[in-house]
Amino acid sequence: MYQTLKGFRDFLPEKAIKRTELINKLKNIFEQFGFDPIETPALEYADTLLGKYGEEADKLLYIFEDKGKRKIGLRYDQTVPLARIISQYQNITKPFKRYQIQPVWRAENTQKGRYREFIQCDIDIIGSLDILSDFEIVDLVLTAFKKIGFKKTKILINDRKNFYGINNSLIASIDKLPKIGEEKVIEELIKKSLKKEEAKKLLNSIKNKSLSEDIKKLFNLLKEKGYKENVDFVYQPTLARGLDYYTGIIYEVVDEDYPTSLGGGGRYDNLIGLFTGKNIPAVGFAFGFDRIIEAIESLSLLKTQKTKTQVLVTIFSSDLIKKSLEIVNFLRKNNINAEIYLNQNDKLEKQLKYADKKGIEYVVIVGPEEAKKNVVNLKNMITGEQRLISLISLINLI
Amino acid sequence: MYQTLKGFRDFLPEKAIKRTELINKLKNIFEQFGFDPIETPALEYADTLLGKYGEEADKLLYIFEDKGKRKIGLRYDQTVPLARIISQYQNITKPFKRYQIQPVWRAENTQKGRYREFIQCDIDIIGSLDILSDFEIVDLVLTAFKKIGFKKTKILINDRKNFYGINNSLIASIDKLPKIGEEKVIEELIKKSLKKEEAKKLLNSIKNKSLSEDIKKLFNLLKEKGYKENVDFVYQPTLARGLDYYTGIIYEVVDEDYPTSLGGGGRYDNLIGLFTGKNIPAVGFAFGFDRIIEAIESLSLLKTQKTKTQVLVTIFSSDLIKKSLEIVNFLRKNNINAEIYLNQNDKLEKQLKYADKKGIEYVVIVGPEEAKKNVVNLKNMITGEQRLISLISLINLI
Repeated sequence: MYQTLKGFRDFLPEKAIKRTELINKLKNIFEQFGFDPIETPALEYADTLLGKYGEEADKLLYIFEDKGKRKIGLRYDQTVPLARIISQYQNITKPFKRYQIQPVWRAENTQKGRYREFIQCDIDIIGSLDILSDFEIVDLVLTAFKKIGFKKTKILINDRKNFYGINNSLIASIDKLPKIGEEKVIEELIKKSLKKEEAKKLLNSIKNKSLSEDIKKLFNLLKEKGYKENVDFVYQPTLARGLDYYTGIIYEVVDEDYPTSLGGGGRYDNLIGLFTGKNIPAVGFAFGFDRIIEAIESLSLLKTQKTKTQVLVTIFSSDLIKKSLEIVNFLRKNNINAEIYLNQNDKLEKQLKYADKKGIEYVVIVGPEEAKKNVVNLKNMITGEQRLISLISLINLI
Repeated sequence: MYQTLKGFRDFLPEKAIKRTELINKLKNIFEQFGFDPIETPALEYADTLLGKYGEEADKLLYIFEDKGKRKIGLRYDQTVPLARIISQYQNITKPFKRYQIQPVWRAENTQKGRYREFIQCDIDIIGSLDILSDFEIVDLVLTAFKKIGFKKTKILINDRKNFYGINNSLIASIDKLPKIGEEKVIEELIKKSLKKEEAKKLLNSIKNKSLSEDIKKLFNLLKEKGYKENVDFVYQPTLARGLDYYTGIIYEVVDEDYPTSLGGGGRYDNLIGLFTGKNIPAVGFAFGFDRIIEAIESLSLLKTQKTKTQVLVTIFSSDLIKKSLEIVNFLRKNNINAEIYLNQNDKLEKQLKYADKKGIEYVVIVGPEEAKKNVVNLKNMITGEQRLISLISLINLI
């Protein structure tokens, strides 16, 4: 039997509807904040991708040879393609505010519950060093999570400059503090060849770092907007974020009701320079789409819809098909999502069962009596209630 | 310099906005007609894809080996993944009406102006032999093209059964009749080893085929709905459509104002059987997304938008940043897409230039006088007109 590949997923209507709904909400907010959409190809030259994410990530790239013997690779994230775009189309007006919502592919170990194909939702501002850009991103993120329905979301904030002069591998251990606790972090640091004293001293110095100038400015803007420190935003001096390319303020979103981070981002003023030859400042955020969907489900933030169809119009008998077609047409013209039952010889009972299984809320039944009087029988499949109404009332009711 | 691969495209805001707008229109109509969305992975087992499209198409598949030595391939169309879905999730309620809008990849010869990555927009009904399904598809297609703004769209219709007993290669030549004319078709048939007399006789017999029973039923339904024969729909007995899997009524959409077909589809009652072991009837249509976009552009059916941002709020001076932030926030809360200028030290002139280059229609300017009186200067960047108005009037105006 034919199957999906490990780490890849089909989305049948119930899931696809929920995903689309979340995407639409996010797009709406992105556009409200002045971000415009772009799209990039799924495939890039391997050279564009390799060496940009770090050694570990390079191993997860899907790299192939095409029929023209070109080395090509599947999109791994949306930041590197964005950097390529900035270098390829130098006349793009900056600051350039773009959002991008496309799948990415990573050859992850699926035993860790990771997917090999997932959607990324990114917003980025290219070409502004101004703290207002960092503020805009944080403001958008907090607004978005509230609009989606999250109640206990906060954004953890740090300045990557706080780690100046410290080796990346040590930073990675310090970053784990909230997850694994102080003792384990120190153990890791010792394994990475620090002496116990040094490890303790390093961790303490990071934990006690005072706010950088940029963070102070950002926090002032956030407070002026009405956000509350330690409720909406929190200074977390051990926060490092995985990727090596961050250069300034970084952030991560968490919700008290959900165990893992729901997205993150920060300032990366040097990455685009790898493509353009000259540095162009940039700041961005990636929404963890799959985790947000999982959190939405576990917190019931969106109602589940099995179908977008609101009404099934049944067929009473073959001489009444015309009537049923008229009604379904009338409903559609009035912006109601409506189906006509598509096997005209099936009994009414089977037609109702179809609506029930598909999760369609209303069923319209038109027998000869109703057709004569120009009314319909409307059955609510959830309550079981049934009533005779005119077509106009039908529109108003649904 | 880093570039996109041949046959692959970036879509910057102006194009991405137009594409999204078309997708939203199509989705809206699909859902009105009772179709629900699904998504399938970009990568499938190569075995799922190979041998389903015909020999020529198999050569265009992107087939690779992944790190687990699996032979995998990129999605080539959305019909085969749909067939896989029907076989993998046997409890899906049928008739199953789904739409799918995702990219597909084909290693086409780019010199022919073909893309290697493009979006497909498909609707299909699985599990209904009823002529009502064929009618629903045709009705939806005609409705959709009208809603998009096309004025001279017609759907060419034929029954693939008309070609019963004729070799596929000969059918392919007959299909070309409207493009290359009778003489050339006969030449081709002769090259394919028919005698001149035989070729003429074959072509004539096809040209004069009378309506099949199914086409008669379909045309009656279309006429009852108010569609006009030879205006909205046309019988074209030589129409064959490329793919081998069609078994019944087939169709193709053309518009008098545009040279190539804008989409096509038909009934394919045997394809799903290749996956499930038992035949399940199916009918569907694929909108030629890229061609529709091209036609929309050449016929100016959608207005061009360089940005979704409606208003740029400028920053008059650093002590008035707070005021500008308040205004941009107020606009967003009222569902107006608004940006704040993101380099607070730039002169007003530069800020206006930015709005102009980006194509933002309105600019808000708040100097110390305006801030005191709680009004703003609103400049229309198209007309150049500028006026003082209150914040409430601002909302109403935009």
